[in-house]
Amino acid sequence: MSVRKTAENTNRAYHEFLNIGTPKIKNRILKTISQKLDASRDYLISENEKDIKSAKEGGSTSAFLDRLALNKKRLDGMVQSCLDLVMIQDPVGRMDNMVMRPEGFKVGQMRVPIGVIGIIYEARPNVTVEAATLCLKSGNAVILRGGSNAYHSNMALVRILREALDENHVNPDLISYIDSKDREAVNELLIQDDYIHLIIPRGGEGLIRSVVEKSRIPVLKHYKGVCHVYIHEQADIDMALNITLNAKIQRPAVCNAAETLLVDLACADTVLPPILQALQEKGVEIRGCEKTQKLGKNIKPVSEDDYYAEFLDLILAVKVVGNIDEAIGHINRYGSAHTDAIITENIHMANRFINNVDSASVMVNASTRLSDGGVYGLGAEIGISTDKLHARGPMGLEGLTTYKWIVIGEGHLRE
Amino acid sequence: MSVRKTAENTNRAYHEFLNIGTPKIKNRILKTISQKLDASRDYLISENEKDIKSAKEGGSTSAFLDRLALNKKRLDGMVQSCLDLVMIQDPVGRMDNMVMRPEGFKVGQMRVPIGVIGIIYEARPNVTVEAATLCLKSGNAVILRGGSNAYHSNMALVRILREALDENHVNPDLISYIDSKDREAVNELLIQDDYIHLIIPRGGEGLIRSVVEKSRIPVLKHYKGVCHVYIHEQADIDMALNITLNAKIQRPAVCNAAETLLVDLACADTVLPPILQALQEKGVEIRGCEKTQKLGKNIKPVSEDDYYAEFLDLILAVKVVGNIDEAIGHINRYGSAHTDAIITENIHMANRFINNVDSASVMVNASTRLSDGGVYGLGAEIGISTDKLHARGPMGLEGLTTYKWIVIGEGHLRE
Repeated sequence: MSVRKTAENTNRAYHEFLNIGTPKIKNRILKTISQKLDASRDYLISENEKDIKSAKEGGSTSAFLDRLALNKKRLDGMVQSCLDLVMIQDPVGRMDNMVMRPEGFKVGQMRVPIGVIGIIYEARPNVTVEAATLCLKSGNAVILRGGSNAYHSNMALVRILREALDENHVNPDLISYIDSKDREAVNELLIQDDYIHLIIPRGGEGLIRSVVEKSRIPVLKHYKGVCHVYIHEQADIDMALNITLNAKIQRPAVCNAAETLLVDLACADTVLPPILQALQEKGVEIRGCEKTQKLGKNIKPVSEDDYYAEFLDLILAVKVVGNIDEAIGHINRYGSAHTDAIITENIHMANRFINNVDSASVMVNASTRLSDGGVYGLGAEIGISTDKLHARGPMGLEGLTTYKWIVIGEGHLRE
Repeated sequence: MSVRKTAENTNRAYHEFLNIGTPKIKNRILKTISQKLDASRDYLISENEKDIKSAKEGGSTSAFLDRLALNKKRLDGMVQSCLDLVMIQDPVGRMDNMVMRPEGFKVGQMRVPIGVIGIIYEARPNVTVEAATLCLKSGNAVILRGGSNAYHSNMALVRILREALDENHVNPDLISYIDSKDREAVNELLIQDDYIHLIIPRGGEGLIRSVVEKSRIPVLKHYKGVCHVYIHEQADIDMALNITLNAKIQRPAVCNAAETLLVDLACADTVLPPILQALQEKGVEIRGCEKTQKLGKNIKPVSEDDYYAEFLDLILAVKVVGNIDEAIGHINRYGSAHTDAIITENIHMANRFINNVDSASVMVNASTRLSDGGVYGLGAEIGISTDKLHARGPMGLEGLTTYKWIVIGEGHLRE
């Protein structure tokens, strides 16, 4: 089927679902999906093995094969996450800010689905179920396009998702998949702005940049996470040490891990040596400025490219700064507007950092690793946005909705 | 100066203003602008006369010359609107939804400016002041690009705006203008996504489509307003008549005027003849479906193109529909997702219309002409969006802000 035809059919299913998609129906479908995934483990694993086999023959890395694999633990996670979604408050239909205007009519904003959402992603087949169920719970239709390496896994998962819709008398086109392996299909998808309302790309920076460049449809994304920890001269030394270690080491391969440490010159001599030593004991490679190099051992010189880099690994850039304004300037220049933290006991400096750091999440005396939909209490997370429009930072079900203005009059006219 | 350099300078001014742009400073600048505009009337009118002269020589229409003119009434409006903005609540800095998480840290969303906003518009020089002051009040920097026909008027206005910033010790680059008459300059502006965060085009559909196609920066816009009034079979006849007349006639050249009337077959014989007659008495040309043609005199046959059309004139398309579902289907297919109204006494039908019409404003028993930032109580309006992301419908100061997540910990780590 052509991409345009798929977009048209998905749009039709969205409009049908506007009419019938009550919270009760959505939750019934989520339960059906959970049951069917649970009952289809052998089928899913055998389809996934076809993808794994091809990827191995193609010489994929072990990290890639890990992301591609549908093992027991991941299937358990999928089965459970559908049930967890049932329990989350449905944002659709909520009426916000309703007021009576002086003329006597009422006006308010009703939460509604965005519409048709295109999700473009890479190897991980669990994104298929995660994205489709979050879109379903928020009343949206979804068009999925996963990486061609996960073709068999995704086809099997989408089949289950669509069967669950069908069994509940809902048009299965509410969850669609672009099954063409042709890369042109993605470009075709990105110009269907009369049928599709939002694109969410999930994957490496290259994929995302290419989507932004070609899309006529609004895109929500983050390119990368270059997160900073800034130790102000009035920081608690133990807190500074613990937060820096947690931000860098607790899970280095994720976007909210710290990539650069900034330390005030006034406290560098006392604060930095124990932190550098503790990081190195945990296997972290330090790339430091000249001053940093003098305060530790085996420290590589840092380059300007390192300040822009998302290492996603046990590597940390370290820079000594003259004061908070230099730290803020560095973060706004080299950072990715994802998550940045200050460690300080001084409330004025905390406020200055909060007001001037132009990032999706700004933290005081907390680890950048806390920047997460679950930790913030959103219940579920479709992704993280470093854009400034619509949803910013961790994006949950609410980020998958918009509002429409509702006016209730009694024959009111414009005078 | 190159467009890129202008974007860079404006971005720097935005970051500086984050630090110093308190409500007090913003309001002081707005007052200075108001005073300076008031004191510069002769200068502004003489600069505007240069543009008017060129436009006349170029054979512009009288409607175009009217939009271009800076007369006493428009200058009064500008002077007053700056003072009105002083009185509006400043959204920046407001902390929303702050909660204490189970782990003991606080998380909330702080309202902040979006950043650097590009405004691309056509002949009307009053947009220059309106857009610049709304961006200023919401803490944003702005890059303006008006139509080349208004060159002298815009240069004079921008000079006053920048002088007002300078006199208040604020970097004048907070309000920038692309003064190149080269059309390439706009294309250059639309790819500065590292410096500019939002584009708002204001003008005809052609301008807006061209901006959307070329922009790598998110765009907020509405292409056109094809608004509907739908008379349900259980409508109050007088209310149906009054709302239809108000929606079509009160100001036909604006985007929230009605362009198509839909009437249930069950009530068409009684409702439609008096409405058609009343409209025609007010000079409205009716283009009707076959059934409509039988119910009135001098009714032209309607074409499918008419259903898509924004007439912006005393012309109305009229269609008799079988039931509410046909009406909703028509609106979602041919409409522009701007504003649509149902007239009914039946609460179930009102709810069905509200849930299924996929437009920025959905009205029950009220005129589409009420769809307006001022009428909704927003205080000011930068434009209307028919997009689904970020701001939808009338967009005021709040629509010119975003949020950042603020986390206040006491040394909190990710476990």
